Amino acid sequence: MRDDVSQMKWWGWGDENIEFDASDKPFLMPFISRELGLSEEDEEVVKPVSIEEVKLPEQVRNQGFLDYARGALRDDQVKTSDKERLVHSYGKSFRDLWRVRRGIVSSCPDCVIYPESEDDVCALMKGAREHDAVLVPFGGGSNIAGCLENRETRSRMVISLDMKRMDRVLEVDKESCVARIEAGSRGPVMEEQLEAQGFTLGHFPDSFEFSTVGGWVATRSAGMQSDKYGKIEDMVLSVRMVTPSGLLVTRTVPKSSNGIDVNHICIGSEGILGVITEVSLQVHRLPEKKEFYGYLFPDFESGVKAMRQCVDEDCMPIVARLNDPGKTALSFAFKSVQPFFKNLMGKAVKKYLSLVKGFDMEKVCLMIMAVEGDRRTFNRVRSRVNSIYRKHGAFKLGISPGRAFQKSKYDFPYLRDFAMDRGVVCDVSETSTVWSNLLPLYYSTIESIQEAIVATGVAPFAGCHISHCYHTGTSLYFTFACMENGTGDIGQYLAIKKAAQDSFIRGGGTLSHHHAVGFEHAPWLEKDISSTGVRAVRAIKDGLDPGGVMNPGKILPDDRLAVDWGLEGGEVESLEGTES
Amino acid sequence: MRDDVSQMKWWGWGDENIEFDASDKPFLMPFISRELGLSEEDEEVVKPVSIEEVKLPEQVRNQGFLDYARGALRDDQVKTSDKERLVHSYGKSFRDLWRVRRGIVSSCPDCVIYPESEDDVCALMKGAREHDAVLVPFGGGSNIAGCLENRETRSRMVISLDMKRMDRVLEVDKESCVARIEAGSRGPVMEEQLEAQGFTLGHFPDSFEFSTVGGWVATRSAGMQSDKYGKIEDMVLSVRMVTPSGLLVTRTVPKSSNGIDVNHICIGSEGILGVITEVSLQVHRLPEKKEFYGYLFPDFESGVKAMRQCVDEDCMPIVARLNDPGKTALSFAFKSVQPFFKNLMGKAVKKYLSLVKGFDMEKVCLMIMAVEGDRRTFNRVRSRVNSIYRKHGAFKLGISPGRAFQKSKYDFPYLRDFAMDRGVVCDVSETSTVWSNLLPLYYSTIESIQEAIVATGVAPFAGCHISHCYHTGTSLYFTFACMENGTGDIGQYLAIKKAAQDSFIRGGGTLSHHHAVGFEHAPWLEKDISSTGVRAVRAIKDGLDPGGVMNPGKILPDDRLAVDWGLEGGEVESLEGTES
Repeated sequence: MRDDVSQMKWWGWGDENIEFDASDKPFLMPFISRELGLSEEDEEVVKPVSIEEVKLPEQVRNQGFLDYARGALRDDQVKTSDKERLVHSYGKSFRDLWRVRRGIVSSCPDCVIYPESEDDVCALMKGAREHDAVLVPFGGGSNIAGCLENRETRSRMVISLDMKRMDRVLEVDKESCVARIEAGSRGPVMEEQLEAQGFTLGHFPDSFEFSTVGGWVATRSAGMQSDKYGKIEDMVLSVRMVTPSGLLVTRTVPKSSNGIDVNHICIGSEGILGVITEVSLQVHRLPEKKEFYGYLFPDFESGVKAMRQCVDEDCMPIVARLNDPGKTALSFAFKSVQPFFKNLMGKAVKKYLSLVKGFDMEKVCLMIMAVEGDRRTFNRVRSRVNSIYRKHGAFKLGISPGRAFQKSKYDFPYLRDFAMDRGVVCDVSETSTVWSNLLPLYYSTIESIQEAIVATGVAPFAGCHISHCYHTGTSLYFTFACMENGTGDIGQYLAIKKAAQDSFIRGGGTLSHHHAVGFEHAPWLEKDISSTGVRAVRAIKDGLDPGGVMNPGKILPDDRLAVDWGLEGGEVESLEGTES
Repeated sequence: MRDDVSQMKWWGWGDENIEFDASDKPFLMPFISRELGLSEEDEEVVKPVSIEEVKLPEQVRNQGFLDYARGALRDDQVKTSDKERLVHSYGKSFRDLWRVRRGIVSSCPDCVIYPESEDDVCALMKGAREHDAVLVPFGGGSNIAGCLENRETRSRMVISLDMKRMDRVLEVDKESCVARIEAGSRGPVMEEQLEAQGFTLGHFPDSFEFSTVGGWVATRSAGMQSDKYGKIEDMVLSVRMVTPSGLLVTRTVPKSSNGIDVNHICIGSEGILGVITEVSLQVHRLPEKKEFYGYLFPDFESGVKAMRQCVDEDCMPIVARLNDPGKTALSFAFKSVQPFFKNLMGKAVKKYLSLVKGFDMEKVCLMIMAVEGDRRTFNRVRSRVNSIYRKHGAFKLGISPGRAFQKSKYDFPYLRDFAMDRGVVCDVSETSTVWSNLLPLYYSTIESIQEAIVATGVAPFAGCHISHCYHTGTSLYFTFACMENGTGDIGQYLAIKKAAQDSFIRGGGTLSHHHAVGFEHAPWLEKDISSTGVRAVRAIKDGLDPGGVMNPGKILPDDRLAVDWGLEGGEVESLEGTES
């Protein structure tokens, strides 16, 4: 039993005690300056307000519920301090950080409770129902779609249920390759327990260090090795979820034909139906061998063709992360000083690539590729993928950039805080589409984002990478940035975010490939799944949670949505042909 | 536009014009005689009653609806003849055939309508809502879980919507490997259209010749090549479903994180939410090479170990169908006369196997294995699987039994009619479980079935095969048979069926791996997905279909269920630990 759960920074990404250090990244500031037009003399560092300056909204006290909770659990599980409330106020979206850095915390939970067992969760559910309180499940707090924000409208007391004390791998069925895992297990804590028994889940999202199993399942998360291991929904055999209508339990079987798949009612439910307490997931034996490699492709299009051919031949690396030219430049700018990159960026290599290989250095694209398996599989796949990449014009960089990626693979989100300190607006938006639509949607979204940024009066940066590859298509993950334009409000950011999301929906993509709906993507839900689809989701919500105990204002559009988001009526791009 | 849709026999399996011929199967009657104790002198052939002897229930006429339908569609799409009503009265479960063969048709649709477009379906939905009629979607009519039976309780007019005129492959996106297919396409009609463009869906259930795409999606079907291609739910990118609350449409994207996955609300909905009109499915390029092989394993356990190792090494044949000793004997008995089998069953081979290889011929298990792919993949997988099988003691029979299987792979269901003609009670029940539970559940279910049969006073046959293999477990497909015990009612059968289903639930399996819930498996639903799971499904039903237009009495248990099934209160095996 641990009562010392660490939390992410209240104002930014990562552990409270770890600060992003740009001093070993000599290319970073020059890159930002060049791309966004920030001259060194303009550089002004504006840090978040101090915690003392943050004024929280008044706490709603439901004494009946609090007495009940303190009776059912131990005192140290129930917390009402300002620090706890602040840490649990938001996730880590740009909108969240923009507000909290300025001390704008217009809503936050009134209380934070740390359950230590499913029984605790059942008791709290009972208490919440009886005393008319609201529960918002909280895993790692890394969500960037607004899933965690208190959006209660009826002045009830809101309790953030921090699941991180439920972090055990309860059982590994080695013969079946199935692990029963508590929902609050964060990535490293979980993998450590699995690895001790010779297994891995194979799920490594960018948020791995902080996010939890329950959060992954609730948001349909994808890890960077999804090409081998699948998205989280492909790994779930069974779920236990405490709902206001009782405990929902499915059976740990590989596949079934038992009507509508109830696992898929829990998966993606983002806390609006109940609290996931435990999941049985398929796990894999640790691979014998694993290595990351870097390649340069002459352009994005040839990289896409190479990925497509790997799918065609059913010869898949476990990671294939193709950066477009913008994202490639950012990746190189993000690197630490080390001999390899010095050389690579050096004049000799550039000259070789442009003269001998005919590469246009403005179009060049970095691919990070990884292979794993037993020696035989490893060698076969590595060799074949290498041939395919070369056939499409790739230049092999070898293992150094691969290892550099592996070493810093979870560091990227820290960059945002560094950039925000310097008045940079920066965020990500991601989608997925089928192969035939991949490049059209890529081009049109890059253009939409750039246009939206330019319309705010500043220079645009827009890049993209592909990191999840399927038989029928891939994800497209856009990163964008620009300098604040001086209006001082969040409208500049919202206009850009809206442009990206509108482009997805207009261009045949989905509202998100693995970041969830929450509040921030909810305006696009009806366009994505049709009004009848929304009605189906609402029916489940109403049926399992008639009293509205669970995480209000998420997934399902409500009356306040458009205004709260920053939209005016009907502002979301409409699309013909998907409506009833 | 086709108005000449062929139907299955009203009284049994397969095309109206094709009769099962046992004359080339010299081992079949001796096998039945030996196993079930039917002596040749006892053999009495009792054919189904003639169609003239079948008395249908009186037709409920909703003149308002009929006028509306005839106005909205062409006259030849709306049929009310007795033959049409009879053909659409039931599916093909043992219970269905037992009744219809005796002329017992206590419920059937009042009208059969053949929509030819989604617009037709939308019009019929509007008509049904306005005129208070009931719609039951009907694909191939091959369902064996009671999904098709008219279970209307409020005396409304019931319309069977026969989807088979909507049988086009509308589009193949060759670059993305996605095909847009109308729901009424039967297997061969669909594959022919795909193959003309160089593609295959790779979905070949035993019912392939008669069942439809919409039926597969609505029941979570599995095909015999699922080890490569997955179950149907793994192939769906998007769905169009006409519900009483409007048209539900999802987007054709490979993966998404858009909240609860609405595709999975349509998949497995068994007609209770709406009419699936169109599905976008992933398809594959036709393989360069494909071959089926036969192997004999010394026993079931070693065959299971071999399958497990293939999974472990991620070296999967596209088919691995392992028969237990009972099912192996039945497979051999089902074979036509041909030189290979003569030899195999001949004394020399038997002697070789038992003397040289040490096989106990009572325990020997037939494995049918198939490999496909480009030449390189084909050779690699074939060779590695062969090594693995040999390591686990298998004797390679070569391609003859493989080809025999391939040739007759859809013939097995015809055997039931032949057996029923001769007073044999015979059926199947299937489930899935994880590897660690596979043999325990196999042994206990075989025993439960045998005991249940013996308790009815006759000799038991019970066999099993494994035909769908996953990372974490497999399916278990049981076949059972015995002679009628002379009581003349269906109680004997129900006791055996109940024993099999109870054994699944008691032993950690699911109620069905790919045959759906319908009416016949509904008594076990709550044990399978918990009462809260049932509540979630009911919430979707109530939300999308508040008037109860769609396929009443399926999936969700109702008041009449236990009695209609033939159970008394509380008779289904209960299991601790899965209830809220």
